[in-house]
Amino acid sequence: MSLPNRIEIHEEGPREGFQIEKPGYSLQQRAELIEALAETGLAQIQVASFVNPVKVPQMADAAELFQTLRKRPGVRYTALWLNEKGFRRAASVPEVDLEGVLYFYASDAFCQRNNNSSAQAHARAQGQWVQLYRDFDLDVRKAYLMTAFGCNFEGEISLAQLRKALDGIAALRDETGITLEEVYLADTVGWANPNAIKERVGLAREIFPSARIGLHLHDTRGIGMANAYAALQEQVDLFDASVAGLGGCPFSGHAQGGAAGNICTEDLVFLCHELGIETGVALEPLIEAARLAERIMGRRLDGKIMHSGSLEKFR
Amino acid sequence: MSLPNRIEIHEEGPREGFQIEKPGYSLQQRAELIEALAETGLAQIQVASFVNPVKVPQMADAAELFQTLRKRPGVRYTALWLNEKGFRRAASVPEVDLEGVLYFYASDAFCQRNNNSSAQAHARAQGQWVQLYRDFDLDVRKAYLMTAFGCNFEGEISLAQLRKALDGIAALRDETGITLEEVYLADTVGWANPNAIKERVGLAREIFPSARIGLHLHDTRGIGMANAYAALQEQVDLFDASVAGLGGCPFSGHAQGGAAGNICTEDLVFLCHELGIETGVALEPLIEAARLAERIMGRRLDGKIMHSGSLEKFR
Repeated sequence: MSLPNRIEIHEEGPREGFQIEKPGYSLQQRAELIEALAETGLAQIQVASFVNPVKVPQMADAAELFQTLRKRPGVRYTALWLNEKGFRRAASVPEVDLEGVLYFYASDAFCQRNNNSSAQAHARAQGQWVQLYRDFDLDVRKAYLMTAFGCNFEGEISLAQLRKALDGIAALRDETGITLEEVYLADTVGWANPNAIKERVGLAREIFPSARIGLHLHDTRGIGMANAYAALQEQVDLFDASVAGLGGCPFSGHAQGGAAGNICTEDLVFLCHELGIETGVALEPLIEAARLAERIMGRRLDGKIMHSGSLEKFR
Repeated sequence: MSLPNRIEIHEEGPREGFQIEKPGYSLQQRAELIEALAETGLAQIQVASFVNPVKVPQMADAAELFQTLRKRPGVRYTALWLNEKGFRRAASVPEVDLEGVLYFYASDAFCQRNNNSSAQAHARAQGQWVQLYRDFDLDVRKAYLMTAFGCNFEGEISLAQLRKALDGIAALRDETGITLEEVYLADTVGWANPNAIKERVGLAREIFPSARIGLHLHDTRGIGMANAYAALQEQVDLFDASVAGLGGCPFSGHAQGGAAGNICTEDLVFLCHELGIETGVALEPLIEAARLAERIMGRRLDGKIMHSGSLEKFR
């Protein structure tokens, strides 16, 4: 079974991690971690989210964090926003590498809780986002489909539901004339398994034959790396991941700290390198960045190779 | 790609776990965990090792642990030994379900450190074990090949080295007339990757066409579950695993606590059930057993689904 020659990994740890940790990490600590990550060859790092500072006080100083960072040329420093106010705040910070990203939901129940509308109504409303991004001269290249595998509020997402959600994205694309070069399936709360990965990546490719399909996987139930390997077998070459396995979904219905974060970046890089797949990322400095994250957080983090070390020194 | 309909999992957590934890867990605590595991449908549980009580004081009371246990009919309660003295101690305890198991090494350096002899000399010497087991009316059904993928002292084990080691096992089998129904490849210190799994399981089957090939995988570098999935794709149906991911290899050259234990039993069971593979194990009570292990150990353990919960209540 052939594997891709090279994959691209987008680092989500700083945003995924600090948004669910207790507030109080200094700008310098967070900037230091991001700067260490940028030295590893990672091409894109999600730095922070511009969200309601009352609900997520950890991200209240997102703008200051971007301004504190020493940015490395060639690395994209992205941000997350969930509404227009958040986007406008992000857009007011010149250091943010803005992207025209659309978010869709496969689960109605999850969409209702997060957006107070059905998944279909929410999808149709994304035309407003397309217009807003255009007002800012941003191409709309990327769409995320959240809860593409299942949802703790709704249960498993059927293939028919998934198709309907993907068709909704394609319809918006056709109506608005956007390109959508990248379509991500997000396993937001850990429902994926290797068979579902293969089936659902296949369906996404059927509906978006010219797009690159990406995966945003969480290791909620311990099979995240098996899911990533199944995706590699399907030639998926675009992954989100999180240094040291930082993160978790605060709105998932899990107890805080109960749900694991994204798949661990350095463990994924190790898997790829062992399989002969290039990542463009240097493993040893990435492991050092994970250890820095652990020192900053002050507790043992979930990553594995950060504790055992790589195989380099034994070879 | 077809997967097995059913796999068998041997639980290693009590032995793997308590042997590297600090001493001092009571017989009652350890028995309680083993009894909880036996209620889940697991067919085999490795309870303890009969090893040098000076070097491994945690296992000094192995006999008492077997005698404290309430054994459940139909479950095999096994033990590990590394020399004749240990075996004779185990054999003197009627509650131990003795097995005629042979241990071989692919890595010379690892074998030298553990047994003070080369891997080949050690393999030839196993004839003495066959005789000893026969003296105790034990069939010799099972062989383990340790460090079948790589070793921190020697580096990667080449396919040629692996073939030589497997040939040595086959030669001993032929000389002694034993059956060897099961041949395990052990990734003792976390060198395996999915490609190596496929290649090496294939080689083991070539040399042992009528044996069942088992895998003993450690999650040292975070890709244990990807390795397990690769093995399932090769129709491997026999795995060792460790509840809550307990364990680690104390003689591996890693710092204590630095190396993760076996792949996590309940995460593996979850993976299998999601893929439609039967395990004979009930996931919910197994998760409860993992949580019991965490309460006994008094610190957060590595298992994932034990923290997030299964999908059952959401479906």
